[in-house]
Amino acid sequence: MSISPFPLALSLGDPAGVGPELIAEAWARRAELRLPPFLVVGARAVLVEAARSRAITLAVTPISHPGEAVAAFADALPVLELDAMVYAPGRPDARGARLSLAALETATDLARAGEVGGLVTAPVAKAALAAVGFDHPGQTEFLAARCGLPTEAAVMMLAGPNVRTVPLTIHCAISAVPTMLSEELIVLRARITAQALARDFGIARPRLAVCGLNPHAGENGAFGDEEARIIAPAIARLRLEGIEATGPHAADALFAPHKRASFDAALCMYHDQALIPVKALDFDQGVNTTLGLPIVRTSPDHGTAFDIAGQGVADAGAIIAAIRLAGEIATRRAVA
Amino acid sequence: MSISPFPLALSLGDPAGVGPELIAEAWARRAELRLPPFLVVGARAVLVEAARSRAITLAVTPISHPGEAVAAFADALPVLELDAMVYAPGRPDARGARLSLAALETATDLARAGEVGGLVTAPVAKAALAAVGFDHPGQTEFLAARCGLPTEAAVMMLAGPNVRTVPLTIHCAISAVPTMLSEELIVLRARITAQALARDFGIARPRLAVCGLNPHAGENGAFGDEEARIIAPAIARLRLEGIEATGPHAADALFAPHKRASFDAALCMYHDQALIPVKALDFDQGVNTTLGLPIVRTSPDHGTAFDIAGQGVADAGAIIAAIRLAGEIATRRAVA
Repeated sequence: MSISPFPLALSLGDPAGVGPELIAEAWARRAELRLPPFLVVGARAVLVEAARSRAITLAVTPISHPGEAVAAFADALPVLELDAMVYAPGRPDARGARLSLAALETATDLARAGEVGGLVTAPVAKAALAAVGFDHPGQTEFLAARCGLPTEAAVMMLAGPNVRTVPLTIHCAISAVPTMLSEELIVLRARITAQALARDFGIARPRLAVCGLNPHAGENGAFGDEEARIIAPAIARLRLEGIEATGPHAADALFAPHKRASFDAALCMYHDQALIPVKALDFDQGVNTTLGLPIVRTSPDHGTAFDIAGQGVADAGAIIAAIRLAGEIATRRAVA
Repeated sequence: MSISPFPLALSLGDPAGVGPELIAEAWARRAELRLPPFLVVGARAVLVEAARSRAITLAVTPISHPGEAVAAFADALPVLELDAMVYAPGRPDARGARLSLAALETATDLARAGEVGGLVTAPVAKAALAAVGFDHPGQTEFLAARCGLPTEAAVMMLAGPNVRTVPLTIHCAISAVPTMLSEELIVLRARITAQALARDFGIARPRLAVCGLNPHAGENGAFGDEEARIIAPAIARLRLEGIEATGPHAADALFAPHKRASFDAALCMYHDQALIPVKALDFDQGVNTTLGLPIVRTSPDHGTAFDIAGQGVADAGAIIAAIRLAGEIATRRAVA
């Protein structure tokens, strides 16, 4: 597989969070880990300070266009500069939120314009963003809107070395989950997931395991009817379309080793059903990737971690995995 | 620590399930694994057939009283015989369900009478048991009733090498979970869990991590109010009592490696929140143990697996772990 000729764009994330120091570490280990070239949309001063806090030797170089990034990457981290101010680790403020939003917007637009091969978003602080006027529940929904798509078209997948999961509902109360699920929602997200596994992950015939909502997938209707009323009909429709969907599966057993080998992605009915197995099995290597967009987008599966920012202890495994996955997907799309 | 002078009693489980073959394998590996002595309440013919299906060399010896078991165990598997009939693996029927129930009742009563050190229950078929008049949701509730206790006094814990969890609601629809949770329920089960961790697991000062119900434990009330209304007040009461309870924790992150080291048991709000991490991390070694009873009781954390019974492929890891844990708890209680 040839490598995409375009660099990846990393959005800085909240400058007071762990994003900048993890980006610095990823760049410092670029050769050892054979990472694809990337640039940062953000602020050189933040990256330099973050590198210092981790005792990382970091060279940064300002660029004015993404086209300069690939050649520069071996010697210095290329930065599209938005801001030259300094921010204190662990102390988020409105200025930092505005910077993280500007970085996200600019990096997204570079990806939409085809000037970078894909987008890796470092963690932002949702509450701080909301306070400066960001009106999306998260970066995933922002990206759908920025790409001119309805929210439903952007599908969150958590991908780790051991398991991939897609939560069908995300940030809502457990009591609201049963009413938010529908046959239509499952079919729509499953289609997008199957297409993305083929196009972006190179899996010719993706196998989707669809979880039940209730324990033991309801045990034949003994507790809860969502499996019979919503989930099984969705699976039947998907199979008629030629998508290899199975279930509803008892979610507790589905993530045991021998079961994990039987599917390429699990469709989960709610947040924790999807996130518990990924974080238990693949913590520090979990990547959040958005399926169904015209652009490639990945993100480390952790937050800003303000409590440990600037202390040199945050693990760079997830951002490294996110960079690697974005590079793989970009390369697959480039040769397709 | 000295070894309990009493044998454990294993109830046969459904004779058409994988229980008998796994019991036979555990006995065959008794020396290598240094298992505590046990007897089986059930049927010699079933065990002999099951051993043959796995090509295990099994000697069985009939006993008429548990007191004969310890001396016999090294040379033959001691069996308290209830039935001499033969059963076909994978084909459950009413006769088999009656035998499994009789074995469970007899083994429980031996434990209650102090004639065995503890009880390990092999898997039963709930639907088949219900068809012959068993009117409990599962073996755990049966045991509470048989010991003269209310159902709430028997607390299910799933214990593996990596994590221990206690589901506060079990076999009910997800939509019913929010209404089934109460401050009282959490406090009651947490107390029993803390006492059992001290008495049965030898943990002087047990640390309980209490999960939230909603994603990110509700994110400060952004989705769902059960954390503020029910869970946090329960934790506050427990702490006033001197129990080291923390939370409500975001359940998705709680089972990542560095978090697992911070607690001795996680109290989970529903079945899959408790079972997904145990089965993902500790499959084939997960033990279901009942806390709060006057008797010691463990069980492998899997079912009858009728689909693979008699084929020699079922993994004995969980029943071996269940025997080992029952032996450890019995020994701790004997010396207490």
